[in-house]
Amino acid sequence: MRVNAYAAPAAGQPLAPTTIERRDVGANDVLIAIEYAGICHSDIHTVNGDWGPQPFPVVPGHEIVGVVAEVGAGVTGHRVGDRVGVGCMVDSCGECANCRAGDEQYCRQGMVPTYAGTDRDGTTTQGGYSTHVVVDAGYVLRVPDGLDPAAAAPLLCAGITTWSPLRRWGAGPGRRVAVVGLGGLGHMAVKLAHALGAEVTVLSQSLKKQEDGLRLGADAYFATSDPETFSHLAGRFDLVLNTVSAAVDVDAYLSLLAVDGALVNVGAPADPLSLNAMSLIGGRRTFAGSMIGGIAATQEMLDFCAEHGIGAEVEVVPADRVNEAYARVLASDVRYRFVIDAATLA
Amino acid sequence: MRVNAYAAPAAGQPLAPTTIERRDVGANDVLIAIEYAGICHSDIHTVNGDWGPQPFPVVPGHEIVGVVAEVGAGVTGHRVGDRVGVGCMVDSCGECANCRAGDEQYCRQGMVPTYAGTDRDGTTTQGGYSTHVVVDAGYVLRVPDGLDPAAAAPLLCAGITTWSPLRRWGAGPGRRVAVVGLGGLGHMAVKLAHALGAEVTVLSQSLKKQEDGLRLGADAYFATSDPETFSHLAGRFDLVLNTVSAAVDVDAYLSLLAVDGALVNVGAPADPLSLNAMSLIGGRRTFAGSMIGGIAATQEMLDFCAEHGIGAEVEVVPADRVNEAYARVLASDVRYRFVIDAATLA
Repeated sequence: MRVNAYAAPAAGQPLAPTTIERRDVGANDVLIAIEYAGICHSDIHTVNGDWGPQPFPVVPGHEIVGVVAEVGAGVTGHRVGDRVGVGCMVDSCGECANCRAGDEQYCRQGMVPTYAGTDRDGTTTQGGYSTHVVVDAGYVLRVPDGLDPAAAAPLLCAGITTWSPLRRWGAGPGRRVAVVGLGGLGHMAVKLAHALGAEVTVLSQSLKKQEDGLRLGADAYFATSDPETFSHLAGRFDLVLNTVSAAVDVDAYLSLLAVDGALVNVGAPADPLSLNAMSLIGGRRTFAGSMIGGIAATQEMLDFCAEHGIGAEVEVVPADRVNEAYARVLASDVRYRFVIDAATLA
Repeated sequence: MRVNAYAAPAAGQPLAPTTIERRDVGANDVLIAIEYAGICHSDIHTVNGDWGPQPFPVVPGHEIVGVVAEVGAGVTGHRVGDRVGVGCMVDSCGECANCRAGDEQYCRQGMVPTYAGTDRDGTTTQGGYSTHVVVDAGYVLRVPDGLDPAAAAPLLCAGITTWSPLRRWGAGPGRRVAVVGLGGLGHMAVKLAHALGAEVTVLSQSLKKQEDGLRLGADAYFATSDPETFSHLAGRFDLVLNTVSAAVDVDAYLSLLAVDGALVNVGAPADPLSLNAMSLIGGRRTFAGSMIGGIAATQEMLDFCAEHGIGAEVEVVPADRVNEAYARVLASDVRYRFVIDAATLA
């Protein structure tokens, strides 16, 4: 099946219209007619070659929402017409301890990324900037009724990436959560932590987005450019969720934690981070990391979002504006996620 | 009350006999006739000035076991003749959130260290290299019958320092624990983790102490000088407890962790540590720290040790050999803890 898509032909090149081949629908496969695909900062890193050489051409997109168009004979969990989603992975071994524990993202054989990955048949996976995709049913999520499909797309990466550490580190009533950075990830973290019942504080470079932050569910908002912020909030938080990929002063953020508190990075700066062991020891504190989440956790997050009326704040764009959207993401000029309308690819 | 003691007169000077004043026994105080005082590496750091200027003369010693000689009118938990212990702290505010949570070591007003600290009355605290000490009853532990008093002394610092992270991070049946370094702290970690039911692996620079390690309860023993060790054990452990204060390759140790695993430092190298965020993110891993433990946890540890027949491996020395013992600690020539026999001070 030959389908329309937008692809980066080489590292750093603008994306352009193309067609790609999708595999035949196997017994356990689902064919999805894509409605929306979110633009994640990872897409930009990948096509720019920031993360090393890639198998170009690359069709990015791992925040996919669409409607089931066909299912294989062995598929029982999805039916034609269902609204579904696909996130950052489309396969894993299913047999290692991590897969069995529901942590397919940490598959010991390596999970298969939704794009620029090597699929089980040896072909290169191609992502959601496209009209259709064929995915193993085990990696297809149900998008519950009531979720706006465009606003739901970013949940598949930005949503689960922040949901997983919020759950792992116990965000909920009586807990104080700080979210560092109010971008695509950060704005989801604020919404989810608030809905989970935590007291939410945004720590952003400036107060520029303060009004937004409070509207999205934050209880407080501080500028990290103000050194008073760190003394004022010392020892306050149970969880500091750092959504910023740039290098930060780890010791300064650790100092904001209460005893047993955790600073969790979901972004990975290119350079090594430096910290003093005493920042950890002097408060039994934790510096941790987290990468997306497993399939069951992603479904749990989608169900939670439907129940609480949570979607991303999105700006829907036609596919022919994807390069402009990339430039605006790099300039932090988006509130808070671009989503490609796949109908413009048809 | 004037009592005999061994003190460092100034930074880097050998310890020498002296006498010091102990306060009158207040309503909530316990007077302890000291039997044994362990020699902790912290004692050496303090008298050498490695941790900054100190209020010399300093009488070190925060691994104290003795017998109650007198109690104040308000003391109900200890009676004359009871065997008791004192660890690294002798007071805290008792009112802050951390004290109320049983984490007196993280008192927000600052806990009062057993030596070289400023006591509530403004005097400088003096430690256990002495014949007697007067301590607030709330910071006096019960040393259960059946524990050898000399072997119990190091439990008050080395024991609780390793017990606390083993408990916090769930060492027990079905869990794999690695202990980095087989010294005073490490040998306690091995004994305690083994008694808690965990599978215990020692990671030591060489295989020099392998026989000891296995005898103390380790299931396996590897040399960290062998690079094969890190590839062989990749992703294996739920907890890696690092008892080594020297700077280590944090990324290498994080690579030994399973998903959700924790690397916990109980020692603090002088220089900042460096790590890659991906070492944390690529396995939802944690780098944490831990400092001794609260009073209730220390009592829990002592009771556990009595129940399981656990004490430190000690070499008992007379007080006039303390300087020689210090030199041997610095040369890692002790298996595994020196303990001063306070009778030799009388």
